[in-house]
Order: sequence, then C-alpha cells, then structure tokens
Amino acid sequence: MVVPSLIQRKRDGAALEPDEWRALIEEYVAGRVPDYQVSALLMAVTLRGLTTGELAALTDAMIASGDRLRFEGLGRPVIDKHSTGGVGDKVSLLLAPMVASCGVAVPMMSGRGLGHTGGTLDKLESIPGFRTGLSLREAEAQVQRIGCAMIGQTAEIAPADRKLYALRDVTGTVESMPLLAASIMSKKLAEGLDGLVLDVKAGSGAFIPEPDRAIEFARTMIALGETRGCRTVALLTAMDRPLGRACGNALEVEEALQGLDGEGPEDLMEVTYALGVEMLLVAGVERETAAARERLEASVSSGQALETFGRIIEAQGGDPAVIEDPGILPQAKAVEVFRAPGSGTVTSVDPSTIGRAIVALGGGRNTMADAVDPTVGFVITVKPGDPVKAGQPLASVFARDAAGITLGLEALGRAISTEGEPAPLPLLSHRITGAGVETR
Amino acid sequence: MVVPSLIQRKRDGAALEPDEWRALIEEYVAGRVPDYQVSALLMAVTLRGLTTGELAALTDAMIASGDRLRFEGLGRPVIDKHSTGGVGDKVSLLLAPMVASCGVAVPMMSGRGLGHTGGTLDKLESIPGFRTGLSLREAEAQVQRIGCAMIGQTAEIAPADRKLYALRDVTGTVESMPLLAASIMSKKLAEGLDGLVLDVKAGSGAFIPEPDRAIEFARTMIALGETRGCRTVALLTAMDRPLGRACGNALEVEEALQGLDGEGPEDLMEVTYALGVEMLLVAGVERETAAARERLEASVSSGQALETFGRIIEAQGGDPAVIEDPGILPQAKAVEVFRAPGSGTVTSVDPSTIGRAIVALGGGRNTMADAVDPTVGFVITVKPGDPVKAGQPLASVFARDAAGITLGLEALGRAISTEGEPAPLPLLSHRITGAGVETR
Repeated sequence: MVVPSLIQRKRDGAALEPDEWRALIEEYVAGRVPDYQVSALLMAVTLRGLTTGELAALTDAMIASGDRLRFEGLGRPVIDKHSTGGVGDKVSLLLAPMVASCGVAVPMMSGRGLGHTGGTLDKLESIPGFRTGLSLREAEAQVQRIGCAMIGQTAEIAPADRKLYALRDVTGTVESMPLLAASIMSKKLAEGLDGLVLDVKAGSGAFIPEPDRAIEFARTMIALGETRGCRTVALLTAMDRPLGRACGNALEVEEALQGLDGEGPEDLMEVTYALGVEMLLVAGVERETAAARERLEASVSSGQALETFGRIIEAQGGDPAVIEDPGILPQAKAVEVFRAPGSGTVTSVDPSTIGRAIVALGGGRNTMADAVDPTVGFVITVKPGDPVKAGQPLASVFARDAAGITLGLEALGRAISTEGEPAPLPLLSHRITGAGVETR
Repeated sequence: MVVPSLIQRKRDGAALEPDEWRALIEEYVAGRVPDYQVSALLMAVTLRGLTTGELAALTDAMIASGDRLRFEGLGRPVIDKHSTGGVGDKVSLLLAPMVASCGVAVPMMSGRGLGHTGGTLDKLESIPGFRTGLSLREAEAQVQRIGCAMIGQTAEIAPADRKLYALRDVTGTVESMPLLAASIMSKKLAEGLDGLVLDVKAGSGAFIPEPDRAIEFARTMIALGETRGCRTVALLTAMDRPLGRACGNALEVEEALQGLDGEGPEDLMEVTYALGVEMLLVAGVERETAAARERLEASVSSGQALETFGRIIEAQGGDPAVIEDPGILPQAKAVEVFRAPGSGTVTSVDPSTIGRAIVALGGGRNTMADAVDPTVGFVITVKPGDPVKAGQPLASVFARDAAGITLGLEALGRAISTEGEPAPLPLLSHRITGAGVETR
C-alpha cells in the first residue's frame, strides 16, 4: 500500500478499493501510517465525499479494528437507539428501560456531552455511584440478566473510530457526512444489533440544521445499517428548541424519572414513545404502531419501566433509591427564577444559546478533558407559541454561585425571544426507512 | 490562532488573512503546529485554491522563515532563471556564465533531480571537485568577485519551504499550482533578485503537460514576482522531447561545454539564447532583443562565457581543466549504439521514458536519499520529424554494465517512435509577461 498515491486518488475524486480502506485503517491503528497522511486523506474525503461502497468498506474496517458485543442464544431481539444530539435530549434515559421492559434487549452505548450538546453518560453519572465504564463482557452479562445496559464506548469498541475522531477534531474534518456516518455506525454495528432506530435532529440546535440535509444523512446511515444486517429506521425530530423542560445533567435525570412515572412533558413523551414504537416494530415484538404504543404506555403506567430503570441503576453501582427520591441527586447551590421582561408570544427558545450557557455554568465541556458539574442548568417551562405576560416566571437557572445566576439569566434573556412570528419545526416531521421518506 | 478553525475556513472555500498565513508558517517552522494539521490544510488548499492575496502572504511568510542573499552596493543588476524542469535541460550550465559575462550578477540557485527530471546540482557535481553547498555568505562573496555562483537551496533559505515540501511529498499535495508557485518563488525571491526569467515547460515530459495550464502557472508566478519588486518574464518551451542531445549528468556537462564553445545543438542554443535575451532585457543591460542576442553570441564566440564558466568551476572547488579537456569528466564503463529498427520518420522521442531510464540506470533518484551515478545516460541524435533508415545510428547508451546497456537499448526502443505523424510542439511558443501573453 503506497499511502501518498491513495491520497492522490481520493484527492482527484476516485474511489478507493475496499481492500485499500481495510489496509489503511489497519495500518493506521497499528501506528504504521502517520497522522499527517491520514489527516490529508480525511480532508480529501471531506471535500470529495465517499461512494456507498467506500463508506461501507471504511465502516467495516473501523468495526474490525476492535471487539464487538456478542448476544448468541439471547432469545430476544437486540435493538439500540442513536440520537444525533441536542439540548434537553434525555430520551435515552426513558427509552432504554421502557423498551427493555417490553422484552427487547437494549445494549445502549452512549457518548458524553461536547460543545453545546449534552451526553447521556454525563446525565447517568449524576446519579450517585452510577458507573458507565463497563467492560463489554460485563455489559453482555447485564443485558442477559436484566435486558439492558447503559454504557460508554469502551476502548475495545472500534478503536479506529476513537483515533480518527481525535484527529478529525483538530484538523477541520469533523463536519463530513460520510465520516460522521461511519463514526456513528461503526460503534452501533459493533454492538451486535438486530435493529437500530435513529433520532435525527433538525433545527438550529442540531449539528445538521437543515431538514433536507438531515434526511440525507439519515438515509446514508440507514443504507449502511441495512446492508450490514441491521434493520435501521430514522425519525426526524425538532431541535430548534430544547426537548422537554430540563437542560442540565441532574435536572434531566429528574425529568426522566418524572417521565417514567407518567409525569413527563408532552413533547419529551411524544418523541420517546415514537422512537420506542419504532424500536418495538424493528424488534418484531409488535407489528402495529398502535399496539406498540399501548405496550410502551403500559410499561409506564404499570411502573415496570421505572422499576427496570431502578434495576439498571443498581446493576451499574448507582443508588436505586433515586427512583423514589430524586432529591438524592446532587442539587445546585443557587437557584433563581427568570421572568418575562414583557408581554407577548414566545417565538423561539434557542437551544444553542442554552447549551452554551450550560457549558459556561460548568455543566458541559469545551474539550473532552473538562470535568462536568451535574447540578447546573435550566428548567424552561415555555415553548414557542406560548403567550406570556410581563413578570410571569418562564424558567429557572441552577448555578454554583451568584455569578452563575447572572450568566444564566442573561443567557435566558437572549435565548427566549418574543420578536417576530413563531415558526417552530414540527416535533416529528419525517419517518425514514430503507424504502423511502414518509411525512408524519 | 486557532488552527482547526483556520483549516475549516479554508476547507469551506474562504480566504485566510495575511496575518493568519504569517502566524501559521511561523508556528509550523517553530514546531508548534503539528504536521497533521498542516497536511489537512494543504489538502484543503490543493482542492480549494488560494486567492492572489493568500498566495502572496504565504510566499512572503515562507521567505521570512529564513535568511536571504544580500547584494547592496553591487552595482550590477541581479538576475536568475528558473526552469520547471525536464529531460536534457542543461540550459543553466550555459546561461549562468554567458549572462554573467555580459555584466549581470547571477546568483543561480538550483535543485537536484527527482523522478524523471534531472537537476542542475547533480550535473555540476559530475565535474571533479565541484562543490554546490556554499553558504549564503560564500555565494554573495563569489557573486561579488566573479559575477556568478551556482548553488543549492541552503538550510538558511526558506526553511518553511523545505519543511512544507517534505510534508507535501508524502501527503498527495505536491500537485497544487499555488503551492508549487509559492515553493518556487519563495526560494527565488529570497535570492534578492532584481529580475527573474522563467523557463516554463509544456509537453509530455513537463510536470504540467498542457500548454494552457502551463501558461496559467507562469502567470501566477509572474504576478507573485512583479508584486514583490522582482521583474518576472516567462518563456513557454517544448518538453515533448529531450532538449539537446545529451541526457545524463556528465554527458550534459560535456554538451554544455560544447555549447559554450559554439558547438551546441541548435534547439539547446535557441532556448538558451532566448532565455538569455530575456535576462539581459530584464536586467536593463540591453534594450533591444537583437542587441541582447548579439551580445550573448559574442560572449560565446569570444570565449568569454567559457572562461567565466572556468572561473565558476575553480571558485567552487572544481577542476577548471574540464574546460579544455571534457575527457576528465567521469566516463561510463559501457557504451553501445542504438540503431533504427526500420526506415521511416521519427514521430516522437518521449522524454519521460528517457528520464525514467536514466533513473533505472542509476543516474537519477526515486527518493532524495538516493546516490546518483554521473556517468550514465543517453545521447540521442534524432528529433521528431527526422527521416531515418533501418540500421542508422540514432542514439548511444552509456551504462555501468551489460545489463544497463540492455535496459537502455530497450528504453530507446520504446522512447523513439516512428508510428503516426510527427506533431512536435514549437520549441518556443509563448512569451508571458505581467502585461499578457505573446505568441512567438
């Protein structure tokens, strides 16, 4: 393999052979191809794209670089969900126990927050004692035992992805659709899934704001999953405002517990149920949308879903008492109410402004080395379209000190707008499968 | 300076600011920006291009990374020539002493052969004792004393170029017009020139074969030179066949000596005189083409040019007896004549085939670390359009052994074609200045 000539061919718009992608990834992970050659190749890919065949070969090579989860003889379908990320997106915390309590195995592998978007691992770790760093063998055993594990990407899963992602992060090559698709799908497919449901976000707080491009991205991932024996379906959901009310790690766990107790905010529950329905259908444990929905609602109303979450927490070292008493979650030192400065109609609640403010309050990361304060964040009780009166409480800031409160109030003042006309995206606008795109 | 965001902007087609290019090059040379970020940026430049302003800023930054030649108070105009490279191109060996003996200072900085093209330094070093590795201060003193020095790019000149070129060589980013222009012009402008004449090659043996693109490349370099206070002119010359007859280091020195003695092949002398005329005009020592040509011819017929070459050789440690006795040049161990396999008209003599055969014979380099055998090569006495008879001698092979002779004869068989119609490029087709392009 002559690396400069591979780079030149990609630079000139040619497609590399599957064997070439395989050899390149193998040699890179083994340290025999230097970063400076791979970063040039990644830039060429970013500007020239990848063919469907190249994307599949790259993804396969990334999977093959590490270990996989194995569920032979489990007797239950193995399904996961992936979200492209947003602000207030605590869906995984509800969905994993709900779907697991419906007879589906859910080996949920999540990430950490970076930039303005939160991460499921950070949220889970706000539960005292909760351990996300299970080994693959521990995760397999837990899925066998209680139907679900909620873990991070271990060093054993797709090490090529970790190495490539770290390089892309510092070389301006993160924002490449095929590289993003390969990164997401290599990790998911290494989970040994029968099916995968994608929550692809659109709107100002999404990493791909434009619905058309987000749908295209979903289709790329679906094609990759379907051709690799994993039934894959996507829903396009709104991320032009935060999902639910709580934004911030412990605050979101509290809201997820409310949701599992039947008291969640409507938009959060709608997205959660819609994704759960797709998971049950992909799993084949239900054949009809209505029946799947009823089964998920019953898992909540019967208390089974909440109980399953308790078992997951206990199995992973967390304090299951949090199920009964969310007050044992870490609490912010300072809380302050934000009131409407004038009367009118809320036209937008900008998720990026909120997400960045959480980082500024200490609840998120600018780099992966940053520590996260689980207590800080916002609870925002208004949505675009809501009428408000001057002085009405619209939100609360949770911070470490008075400076944080000031910063948080200022951010809410910028994020919540009453200018212009409200034009929120539909909460759930499209369902995308290998067969095509349906409008919801 | 946040490097990833610079890379992203270039990736997205934006122009970086002059200060950003300056800082980037400074930090890169200082080792504070890693290769993997620069290679990603170079790939983005290769695919997105550079604006005129960016190219100027990058070139200035590369010049500023090192030392320069300084000729204050010299009292003579300082002029150099640059060739984009070819096979049999020994023009510098004739031109430097000819122009220097016409009252122009010529600090000629040349390169080594790489791939199928030869390099002036390798040719000069076939003269016993000749030393090309002068320091800048030695070169300045020699130009003061005898009007000319013929040296290599020292570590002091544009170190950023050396570092960037080494990286480009292994990351598929050599073939970028603006990066090539910046590389060439940063070295030339660091020579403290008043003027520069470019010999831009077109044809199958040129690194840009298409005349249109070669002209575009010439215009890019001219704009860069002219805006930096260096009068710059280019001639487009043919490299669809070797220039002159001799191809190979010592063989080319011998042909250059014949040329300085008034006995050079016609095409070589035409190109040499045409470039020399431009150098004298740019220098302002002559105002008319005809007068400049006469003066150059007189430098040959009077013996002054050859004598000047002798002084250069002596000043740089070489044996000046070579002027009188080219037989002291190293001689090949094996020589064999190549005869026309049939009768007909020569339609082409492929320079790339010849150049690659010289490398295979040991007379060139695949990598910069390779040693070069000065004795091997070819003398080809036919040109496209020449009628030949079966059995007529067309060329000679100079090799180390019988295996080399076999290889060389085989290469000549492939390089010299009598198929089809001859359609050679005009030897000198265009003259390009800041004002525009003239057909010759």
